[in-house]
Amino acid sequence: MLKSFDFSALYTDFYELTMAQGYFLTNKKEDIATFDYFFRSNPFNGGYTVFAGLGDFLNLIKDFRFTDENLIYLEKQGFLKDFISYLKDFKFRGEILSCREGEIVFPNEPLIRVSGNIIECQLIETLILNIINFQSLIATKTSRIVYAAEGKPVIDFGLRRAQGFAGIMATKASIIGGAAATSNTLAGYLYDIPVKGTHAHSWVQSFANEYLAFRSFVENFPENAILLIDTYDTLNSGLPNAIKVAKEMERKNLKLKGVRLDSGDFSYFSKKVRERLDQNNLGYVKILVSNQLDEYTIQSLNNQNSPIDMWGVGTRLITAYDQPALDGVYKLSSLNGEAKIKISENIEKINNPGIKKVRRYFDFNSKFFIDGIILEKEENIKVIKHPFDIYKKTPVDKSEYEELLLPVYKDGEIRINFSIKDIVEYKNKRFETLNEEHKRFVNPHVYRVGISKKLWELKDTLIKRYKSNLK
Amino acid sequence: MLKSFDFSALYTDFYELTMAQGYFLTNKKEDIATFDYFFRSNPFNGGYTVFAGLGDFLNLIKDFRFTDENLIYLEKQGFLKDFISYLKDFKFRGEILSCREGEIVFPNEPLIRVSGNIIECQLIETLILNIINFQSLIATKTSRIVYAAEGKPVIDFGLRRAQGFAGIMATKASIIGGAAATSNTLAGYLYDIPVKGTHAHSWVQSFANEYLAFRSFVENFPENAILLIDTYDTLNSGLPNAIKVAKEMERKNLKLKGVRLDSGDFSYFSKKVRERLDQNNLGYVKILVSNQLDEYTIQSLNNQNSPIDMWGVGTRLITAYDQPALDGVYKLSSLNGEAKIKISENIEKINNPGIKKVRRYFDFNSKFFIDGIILEKEENIKVIKHPFDIYKKTPVDKSEYEELLLPVYKDGEIRINFSIKDIVEYKNKRFETLNEEHKRFVNPHVYRVGISKKLWELKDTLIKRYKSNLK
Repeated sequence: MLKSFDFSALYTDFYELTMAQGYFLTNKKEDIATFDYFFRSNPFNGGYTVFAGLGDFLNLIKDFRFTDENLIYLEKQGFLKDFISYLKDFKFRGEILSCREGEIVFPNEPLIRVSGNIIECQLIETLILNIINFQSLIATKTSRIVYAAEGKPVIDFGLRRAQGFAGIMATKASIIGGAAATSNTLAGYLYDIPVKGTHAHSWVQSFANEYLAFRSFVENFPENAILLIDTYDTLNSGLPNAIKVAKEMERKNLKLKGVRLDSGDFSYFSKKVRERLDQNNLGYVKILVSNQLDEYTIQSLNNQNSPIDMWGVGTRLITAYDQPALDGVYKLSSLNGEAKIKISENIEKINNPGIKKVRRYFDFNSKFFIDGIILEKEENIKVIKHPFDIYKKTPVDKSEYEELLLPVYKDGEIRINFSIKDIVEYKNKRFETLNEEHKRFVNPHVYRVGISKKLWELKDTLIKRYKSNLK
Repeated sequence: MLKSFDFSALYTDFYELTMAQGYFLTNKKEDIATFDYFFRSNPFNGGYTVFAGLGDFLNLIKDFRFTDENLIYLEKQGFLKDFISYLKDFKFRGEILSCREGEIVFPNEPLIRVSGNIIECQLIETLILNIINFQSLIATKTSRIVYAAEGKPVIDFGLRRAQGFAGIMATKASIIGGAAATSNTLAGYLYDIPVKGTHAHSWVQSFANEYLAFRSFVENFPENAILLIDTYDTLNSGLPNAIKVAKEMERKNLKLKGVRLDSGDFSYFSKKVRERLDQNNLGYVKILVSNQLDEYTIQSLNNQNSPIDMWGVGTRLITAYDQPALDGVYKLSSLNGEAKIKISENIEKINNPGIKKVRRYFDFNSKFFIDGIILEKEENIKVIKHPFDIYKKTPVDKSEYEELLLPVYKDGEIRINFSIKDIVEYKNKRFETLNEEHKRFVNPHVYRVGISKKLWELKDTLIKRYKSNLK
């Protein structure tokens, strides 16, 4: 039975192993492949995605080995002895380029480029998708929630509704997305993230009455005490008791930090609570709310001028409730120097062949302007074309640009070393450089991602070749 | 940085630790509490829930200890030395009753009852919610998908879209829910679950043409080979190539197991593919489909008589896409023998106070009839009342019944030992005993869960007491 769980190279879809043995048996094991990780649409009908999970992914790559027990298991599953001997020494020795963790990214651009022999590239497919899809999803969701909160702190309260062990990585991703702290103690410990908490209804219930429960709580935690005031009746019991305790604290030169609302209409209750606190000269007592919050509820409450100082967000953040998966894929783009394509009925789903880089162009205000997917060896790019509308193109020859893909893993070693603090800072800086119209929740302006003329021609040639072969 | 992760008692919300120290300092550490785990509504607007996660939860309880490093961390977070000494020897020593894993359960009935000192009961709150909410959610989702598949095997293909490490437990829960196999190799290894897989588009792309890719695949995997036929063009390339290879196999007395469709309209394509396979006397070649499937799509494809033999289900199963969290809660119901209540504006959200058991009554056809929540010490129950509609009650004095809550953990030991096979068998047996009208997807008939007359009176007394205190 599972305890925590022992991560190993078995963290992969079975068909990756089947194909790996197939490549091994057909003498393809030295074939050099390049795969691209990209996603096809921004989550939540949004205008951008926050790229996250790179650090964990690279760390896991280092642990991506088969134990002796793993190999015995694979032999029982029918894999051949020669192949199992090969897996015994398996280690990912390829090269990985990636955009930086915390980058603001868009659909269809390669975010991670993996090169190596085809077996090693294939075996890590599931891992890359599993980690990057999920952390980017949660970082993006949190970024939206934090944007709606307009500077007021957002705290992750989600562990109890997280998808089991997903809660640990989700909390880390929420910090990249902009959460100020978490209730998740293990994530705090593992990743050095600020941890916060108040108390539950059970604390109140465990005392003879609510007043005694509050008094006892602030006696034991005089600093940073936030009292949950909705156990019995928010306005007729919880709030008067909290005010009484706050006044008692003042006589000892202490200050109650805040009150928490966990039910009811937050616009109505926050206004009533603020009014009564202020009438009692408790303007410093803050209001924290928690219960089924997301970016839309927070935006609506702010639009109603609800005097809320802190947001505790659980389920809808930690599971990315309205879209709990990102559609990232990992596609072969080159084999032994030959560009590879996968055809689809839908022109938008035909992948960009060849080994590629990604350039981000800036406008005169130093804001993001357009991203271009370009063949690795191209220079002197004059225009970026729309990926399939042949009439659309954008001149970029006068624009500043940055390369988005940087080497992050080579010769078995991680080549970057970002702390979470650095990642958060980078994400904040980049998010500021994104124009506001891409950030709104309803019908955001589509950020342009195009391709170079040479890539367009390569794709066109390959598509025509396959179509003509079918005749 | 996270590698797999080291599970410990820090897997808890920070406020559980704050409250635990509060109980410790207010001399409540020997107070005997009982908490109930229950959820408030069936997920997916469904008529039932499959209870899962118990085995993993109980195993994790045994590992729920603080390491020395954990305690150093907590000291840095401001916890007091005396309390930290107390945590050094912390171990859950209480008693847990639970319904059986794989049970068919309903809203508001206590599914797990935890008794012990208030500190140990409080500290495991987050763990119980995290594990049971998630596994029950996925087992229920899978059960619905399997029900829609009408006996055809459902295979979990979800790891790449799972919420990070959630994928391991999700796969296990999917097996409890009725999935036949998984692509998740590590879950297969850890839980002894059948693993399956085909090949990806990259396999096809890595060969000079699709025919060579197929031929090579079946040469290396002559048994159980399933060919993915949509890399370039399903009907004009993939299918003819698969038929050619199948015919070559026949000359060696081998049989192609199947073909896989991963895009396009499955009703149209499965019929075309079946027709052409049959025209070529390949009636034994099965059709597997995979891509954005859920219970509604499968039911619709079956209603259109699509000749599909196997269903590969990914994202929507592994994340419970349309409702990625179950709303389970954990509420104090008794302290030192005194029944405890939490009031709410909403009568449906007022918890059932006191130490309780749950009885399931059967009708004359031995089908589930009504569940009753009853005070622990009650016998001779004549009627089960509606939880708040005072005019509704159901006589049960002539009905057979079973107790749903059984002792599962006591004196630091797990008291049950079910294999996954046993759990699946139990779930199947119980699911058969549930009337069909609770299983349908649209407006399922609500299964009745009521309370005993004595529990009704206890609740009424406590509510009136709190209301009168507020005057």
